[in-house]
Amino acid sequence: MSSLKLGVIGTGAIGRDHIRRCSQALLNSQVVAVTDINLEQAAKVVAELDLVAEIYCDGHALINAPEVEAVLVTSWGPSHEEFVLAAIAAGKPVFCEKPLAVTAAGCRKIVEAEIAHGKRQVQVGFMRSYDQGYRALKAVIDSGQIGEPLMLHCAHRNPTVDENYKTDMAITDTLIHELDVLRWLLADDYVSVQVVFPRKSPKALPHLKDPQIVLLETARGTRIDVEVFVNCQYGYDIQCEVVGETGIARLPEPSQVQLRSQAKLSNAILMDWKDRFIAAYDVELQGFIDGVRAGQVGGPSAWDGFAAAVAADACIEAQNSGAIVRIGLPPRPAFYN
Amino acid sequence: MSSLKLGVIGTGAIGRDHIRRCSQALLNSQVVAVTDINLEQAAKVVAELDLVAEIYCDGHALINAPEVEAVLVTSWGPSHEEFVLAAIAAGKPVFCEKPLAVTAAGCRKIVEAEIAHGKRQVQVGFMRSYDQGYRALKAVIDSGQIGEPLMLHCAHRNPTVDENYKTDMAITDTLIHELDVLRWLLADDYVSVQVVFPRKSPKALPHLKDPQIVLLETARGTRIDVEVFVNCQYGYDIQCEVVGETGIARLPEPSQVQLRSQAKLSNAILMDWKDRFIAAYDVELQGFIDGVRAGQVGGPSAWDGFAAAVAADACIEAQNSGAIVRIGLPPRPAFYN
Amino acid sequence: MSSLKLGVIGTGAIGRDHIRRCSQALLNSQVVAVTDINLEQAAKVVAELDLVAEIYCDGHALINAPEVEAVLVTSWGPSHEEFVLAAIAAGKPVFCEKPLAVTAAGCRKIVEAEIAHGKRQVQVGFMRSYDQGYRALKAVIDSGQIGEPLMLHCAHRNPTVDENYKTDMAITDTLIHELDVLRWLLADDYVSVQVVFPRKSPKALPHLKDPQIVLLETARGTRIDVEVFVNCQYGYDIQCEVVGETGIARLPEPSQVQLRSQAKLSNAILMDWKDRFIAAYDVELQGFIDGVRAGQVGGPSAWDGFAAAVAADACIEAQNSGAIVRIGLPPRPAFYN
Amino acid sequence: MSSLKLGVIGTGAIGRDHIRRCSQALLNSQVVAVTDINLEQAAKVVAELDLVAEIYCDGHALINAPEVEAVLVTSWGPSHEEFVLAAIAAGKPVFCEKPLAVTAAGCRKIVEAEIAHGKRQVQVGFMRSYDQGYRALKAVIDSGQIGEPLMLHCAHRNPTVDENYKTDMAITDTLIHELDVLRWLLADDYVSVQVVFPRKSPKALPHLKDPQIVLLETARGTRIDVEVFVNCQYGYDIQCEVVGETGIARLPEPSQVQLRSQAKLSNAILMDWKDRFIAAYDVELQGFIDGVRAGQVGGPSAWDGFAAAVAADACIEAQNSGAIVRIGLPPRPAFYN
Repeated sequence: MSSLKLGVIGTGAIGRDHIRRCSQALLNSQVVAVTDINLEQAAKVVAELDLVAEIYCDGHALINAPEVEAVLVTSWGPSHEEFVLAAIAAGKPVFCEKPLAVTAAGCRKIVEAEIAHGKRQVQVGFMRSYDQGYRALKAVIDSGQIGEPLMLHCAHRNPTVDENYKTDMAITDTLIHELDVLRWLLADDYVSVQVVFPRKSPKALPHLKDPQIVLLETARGTRIDVEVFVNCQYGYDIQCEVVGETGIARLPEPSQVQLRSQAKLSNAILMDWKDRFIAAYDVELQGFIDGVRAGQVGGPSAWDGFAAAVAADACIEAQNSGAIVRIGLPPRPAFYN
Repeated sequence: MSSLKLGVIGTGAIGRDHIRRCSQALLNSQVVAVTDINLEQAAKVVAELDLVAEIYCDGHALINAPEVEAVLVTSWGPSHEEFVLAAIAAGKPVFCEKPLAVTAAGCRKIVEAEIAHGKRQVQVGFMRSYDQGYRALKAVIDSGQIGEPLMLHCAHRNPTVDENYKTDMAITDTLIHELDVLRWLLADDYVSVQVVFPRKSPKALPHLKDPQIVLLETARGTRIDVEVFVNCQYGYDIQCEVVGETGIARLPEPSQVQLRSQAKLSNAILMDWKDRFIAAYDVELQGFIDGVRAGQVGGPSAWDGFAAAVAADACIEAQNSGAIVRIGLPPRPAFYN
Repeated sequence: MSSLKLGVIGTGAIGRDHIRRCSQALLNSQVVAVTDINLEQAAKVVAELDLVAEIYCDGHALINAPEVEAVLVTSWGPSHEEFVLAAIAAGKPVFCEKPLAVTAAGCRKIVEAEIAHGKRQVQVGFMRSYDQGYRALKAVIDSGQIGEPLMLHCAHRNPTVDENYKTDMAITDTLIHELDVLRWLLADDYVSVQVVFPRKSPKALPHLKDPQIVLLETARGTRIDVEVFVNCQYGYDIQCEVVGETGIARLPEPSQVQLRSQAKLSNAILMDWKDRFIAAYDVELQGFIDGVRAGQVGGPSAWDGFAAAVAADACIEAQNSGAIVRIGLPPRPAFYN
Repeated sequence: MSSLKLGVIGTGAIGRDHIRRCSQALLNSQVVAVTDINLEQAAKVVAELDLVAEIYCDGHALINAPEVEAVLVTSWGPSHEEFVLAAIAAGKPVFCEKPLAVTAAGCRKIVEAEIAHGKRQVQVGFMRSYDQGYRALKAVIDSGQIGEPLMLHCAHRNPTVDENYKTDMAITDTLIHELDVLRWLLADDYVSVQVVFPRKSPKALPHLKDPQIVLLETARGTRIDVEVFVNCQYGYDIQCEVVGETGIARLPEPSQVQLRSQAKLSNAILMDWKDRFIAAYDVELQGFIDGVRAGQVGGPSAWDGFAAAVAADACIEAQNSGAIVRIGLPPRPAFYN
């Protein structure tokens, strides 16, 4: 069977990286069409990566180009909804970087369009569930070795963030990954959230509340605490500990050389988030490509994107109100079972 | 200088163990007087431990015996207040097992009596701050290596508890140790508490809510979460992780042989709480003995006992109400600075 | 550029696995020709893996088939030399599973044929240097963080071996991987070897001396001890600790979920060697494919294969004599610099 | 029963420390007599430690003083033999710092004198077997969890040594501790030794061969390798790994706070050897005191001191000859069973 012919909308950092991936690192795919709000930028990427690809004037033209078999949406967030809906309408499978849409209502519209279409067309770019460590953790949970999960203690820490990072981005840019992966890990939905603000770190800029602790409750009563701390200085550090009825399982630390040096027994901690889940991006996109070629879009669904958006909205309300906020996700349509 | 002559009120499990300690394991002390609500039990302990000690008919007689230079109160909790007050009145230093009194009001009365006496007379039997691991953790914090503490993530887990253990004992018997040691670790006071109940473990008896998560806030804004899980099955496990502005410090695990065996790289986890802080009891009581002989009672004070009682009362209110409860500790008297 | 067209000689376990790899998991390669001593077996593999590939009557026919651009030799060890020489003669790049030849003299003949050919044509199937862990370890050494290496403490342990495993296979099948990777890690050559036999494990069959300790010395004076223990019962465990002038670096343990369960804090140890370096096989063969397509065969060379054979011969002599045996590798031809 | 009255011969660093221990830190002992080659130094120690102790003109006068019930020999090594023999002759229990005598013949003489005396009188100051970590390791071995020991991989590393440290002191001052503790750990005797010299560390002074690797064989065939590296720079680090028939047990690392800081997950490594076994010295001397008071001298015996001396002599011969040297310990007298 021949390679999957991809069209890519958006050639910024993540778009360029996915184009490189699909044209150079993954199996059975080629990028045949690209576009960007800035066409010069699109042309530059095509040239730099030595692609044989048509440059389209906009996303709709690309989606409707006959040679494009599947679409990658890696454009500016607010444009995602429009392009995903157009891809569904055109009957073409679409991989959309997060967020699926910038509002829960937008995500809902996509869910409805997909259901109307009658078959899964959309995969959302949540990559954590493709990480080897999270998969190993889920395997331990599912094996029953630690019994049913009762509590999760998690942390998402970055060394620093720049001045564009605002307090609500702790939810929409940072926690969003936990909102996605913990639902998947537990096969459970969130029902409430509370956010508390510890003493602020002096390393955080004046406009930013950092760190934050997000307290989630699931439908089955599992309690989750996630420390979000984006100026922790010491490293990019993702922690996830699952306390079950009979034991505890912990996400593996990235594998590192153990050093004895200068009065310390140590392992390096990563400083750059890009190094942490780099392999997961490959697995995620290869999964999309293999799925489309097999006629089965899988991975994080539009419903998962919607659920994350609903939860994120509640988290932001909880940031603002200080109260325990209900997360009112509608019942899951049978379509997504 | 000769040995300190101790009188011990209460010869149950902990009393007997402290008598053994003071007469056989520690320096510069001897047990010259004992009493118990059950005088036969007192006589039995004297015989078994081969003591040369007078058996007194009750705590007051013992306290007032001329040869008794200092008093250990290890009797039934509700009797502590009375004996501690009597020891203060008699001008004799007193080591009182926790709780100092069964109500915050009782503790307050002791604080006032001690202040009126004009000099510290009371040491409360909180042993965690005498543990080598907690001391090392405090040394790291105080060194400034991780900056100011912003968050603490703690856990207090027991394999199982018996049927007498009720939901409020998660506070009064279990969390009480964290209420004590974390105040000491942070040199800070609690200002509010909230308790949340995760999905209940099926290993817990029907009448018991287990696990629980206790969320504390301190005067300086540090946020503490303590998981209390007394039917965790796998071990007696005490965790304390301090997240500072620039780094994280974690309480050492007990030192264990590392094994490679049966497809596992493993270290043993203790099953019995008695093995965890056993060395700390020796250090604690030796500290009391040395302090008295040097004319300076130190260690956890009556004020610390009162503060723990006030916090525990608020925690129980928070268990019952589900609300965030204020912890209204009065200003610390200059006497305790 | 189109895919590299591979011919594979030998469709046993490792051959089949490499065929699967090159046709399904790696980029830019296809298997167009196969053969085996057992042609039915070859046909079966072609069918099972759904290949479009010609079945040739023997290795020479396959090597000389015009559509075959590069050759994989995965046949029975004693046949390697013949096929590698034939591939060199035919001017086709060849990847040869270890051993390159069953005698050092055979390896030498290949080295000479390759030099006569004038350009590197041969990559030997030593995969350890493609393992992420060993690469990280080499990066630490090369960074100068631990100074120059002075000693290496290594272990190669298998849970059990079957009755076909003889004492000399501890060298030719087991230690051979250390002989390869440690030369690469240190960029140094062995000059002597001694083998000592500890008390035999009762788990080893009567005919087998197990464990063994191999003591190597390098040209620069670095001392290496390798424990070979192939009935260690507990796991497949590869250890490598490099003691440098100012610090020590240790090969990472495979990444695993950390468990607290049944009174143990544990990480799983692998039981099957196939799971340990599985990713390295992919990287190794992709390296060969990419190298050939770029006109540059790289990776472990025929010289490396020869050096390993010379060292292995000395190790076996040392097993038999109990003496310190010199490892007389001739000077490295400039061709291999 | 009253305190044991000790006389101490030698008030240098270790002597002064043992005097402090016996008079201030341990139970049931007092130092009633001291002497030193330098009487002013002896007087100074008595004054500084606020002792009520007689200063004797020499060791013999002290040994024979009626109030001295037991003797501590902490003088210059070459004088040990004379004082231990005198104590045996005087019928007084004696604790002798290592070495028991500076020659194996001297140790033998003490063994014979003790046997002639008819009862154990001598404890040698080897403290490793009193360390909690080694005791835990021995408990694991003795439990059978890892089967019979087949190999030991050990290391004894110091950050640096001063210019007085000569090549043979790697045996007499450094390895001597492993020679003692590994015999005890295995309940086995050494039968041969070989020493190899890796590439020399440039951090070692010109006159010193450092590192060294000592290869020992025991009567039961267990093979031991000990890396001795006294200019390793990074820390004082004692390693001991016991490879058994079914598993591996490793000496615990000293318990330390785990830090996440500056891109490292780390535990401190000790720099000063004095911090490593500090608790073991207390346990060792308390053991001597308790033993004498109970009429039973225990711990490392004169025979153990002799065995260590015989092994050390062979190690030095092996350093010089480069050959495998037999360790010819005579049969153990029944007296020491």
